[in-house]
Amino acid sequence: MKRIRLTVAYDGTAYCGWQVQPNGITIEEVINRKLGGLTGEDITIIGASRTDSGVHALANVAVFDSDTTIPPDRMAIALNQKLPDDIVIIKSEEVLPDWHPRYQKNITKTYEYHVTNAPFPNPLKRLTSFFVSYHLDIGKMREAAGYIVGEHDFASFCNIRTNALTTVRRVDELSIRQEGEDITFRISGNGFLYNMVRIIVGTLLRVGRGFYTPEQVKEIVEARNRKAAGVTVPPQGLVLVEIDYHEDETQKIEQ
Amino acid sequence: MKRIRLTVAYDGTAYCGWQVQPNGITIEEVINRKLGGLTGEDITIIGASRTDSGVHALANVAVFDSDTTIPPDRMAIALNQKLPDDIVIIKSEEVLPDWHPRYQKNITKTYEYHVTNAPFPNPLKRLTSFFVSYHLDIGKMREAAGYIVGEHDFASFCNIRTNALTTVRRVDELSIRQEGEDITFRISGNGFLYNMVRIIVGTLLRVGRGFYTPEQVKEIVEARNRKAAGVTVPPQGLVLVEIDYHEDETQKIEQ
Repeated sequence: MKRIRLTVAYDGTAYCGWQVQPNGITIEEVINRKLGGLTGEDITIIGASRTDSGVHALANVAVFDSDTTIPPDRMAIALNQKLPDDIVIIKSEEVLPDWHPRYQKNITKTYEYHVTNAPFPNPLKRLTSFFVSYHLDIGKMREAAGYIVGEHDFASFCNIRTNALTTVRRVDELSIRQEGEDITFRISGNGFLYNMVRIIVGTLLRVGRGFYTPEQVKEIVEARNRKAAGVTVPPQGLVLVEIDYHEDETQKIEQ
Repeated sequence: MKRIRLTVAYDGTAYCGWQVQPNGITIEEVINRKLGGLTGEDITIIGASRTDSGVHALANVAVFDSDTTIPPDRMAIALNQKLPDDIVIIKSEEVLPDWHPRYQKNITKTYEYHVTNAPFPNPLKRLTSFFVSYHLDIGKMREAAGYIVGEHDFASFCNIRTNALTTVRRVDELSIRQEGEDITFRISGNGFLYNMVRIIVGTLLRVGRGFYTPEQVKEIVEARNRKAAGVTVPPQGLVLVEIDYHEDETQKIEQ
């Protein structure tokens, strides 16, 4: 029995998120089914990030155990031949039998949120960005972002449906890049609460629009109350871009 | 009766191209139908570029004549409320009654062709770029592009289904930009033959891969024979980005 780790990219448009649920097809479910077909086993993968409906990923991570004779590093190619075009395995490798994608000591997740800021929407970006026609003050949003970085109780930026044990998280980086009509929020940290990135971006957009001053974001953090923050922006702008496990070599199986 | 000009952006994925045809739904057809609903008239728009199935546009141009009471510059907003999300009117304005989008004296069209060059496809770019996993020599492709620029008989780069009167065209610019996994070919000229941009890109990719030397592209141009050139790359990488009419003010109606 081997534990195999997959790095998975997907366009979340057509899916009800990552995690198997009764109301519609999910990314996890599609991969489980194709892995079953390939290995002849009944496989349930364990994912690192249970992304929401419509959210995308360039590198989500999942593991499964299998007695398959397919070499672990060839599993990506074998699976890609069976998967639909909107799900791509970009890497497959064997890991230690106790390696778990959610319970490693040191995890850094990075998300990007894409905004199209123009007078009219760009139809080529409608499934991968949030369209905003109003003027945004990028300098003020960057100033406000400074109050988000660091270790804080992020209860103000957490959907009330959470079942997290603690709402304390550490944000290591929050940058805002502007290139023509494209504005990209890039945020890294040791973990994110339910809807946290989308509520942070919704709050910063209110700063950019002039509804909040940058300093008010400090107060919003301190309020520890979801009602203090801005709206949750829609899912299609969000992409999970990287999960860094800061691995030392002892955690990897030599290929 | 007024002549109204529309500037139209669209994601071509779901359409059988611009022009009305019996086998499937087209962009022209959708706009005609929505304009009919708005104005109560039977309207047929005339487009500047009859883009192929799956090809996108940021700024195609079309005109129609109408007795509508909707102010020409408000037509964009009125139409966008009726159009599906993958077609957006980014501008509407009145033009002179004899202004025709294909028969102006001085027209420069600009297309971009997007390639994703990486070991695995990026599912978020699958509908807007052509995925290529092999190594590309950008310097050699740029060298070869020099033989395309200028006024030439482009018969080698024209689908045999053309009904063009002449295959002579002028290419003003052909640049190749690389940013990470994204390679963008940008080409401007006074007009393009059927499939011309996609055959030029297919030929340059063969140079990048080492199948042709840059100098051979000079011979391919001189051959004036479609069989001499590379394959037609797929439509989803192609975007019509601009049509410049180099207008003087006499051709515009003052708003």
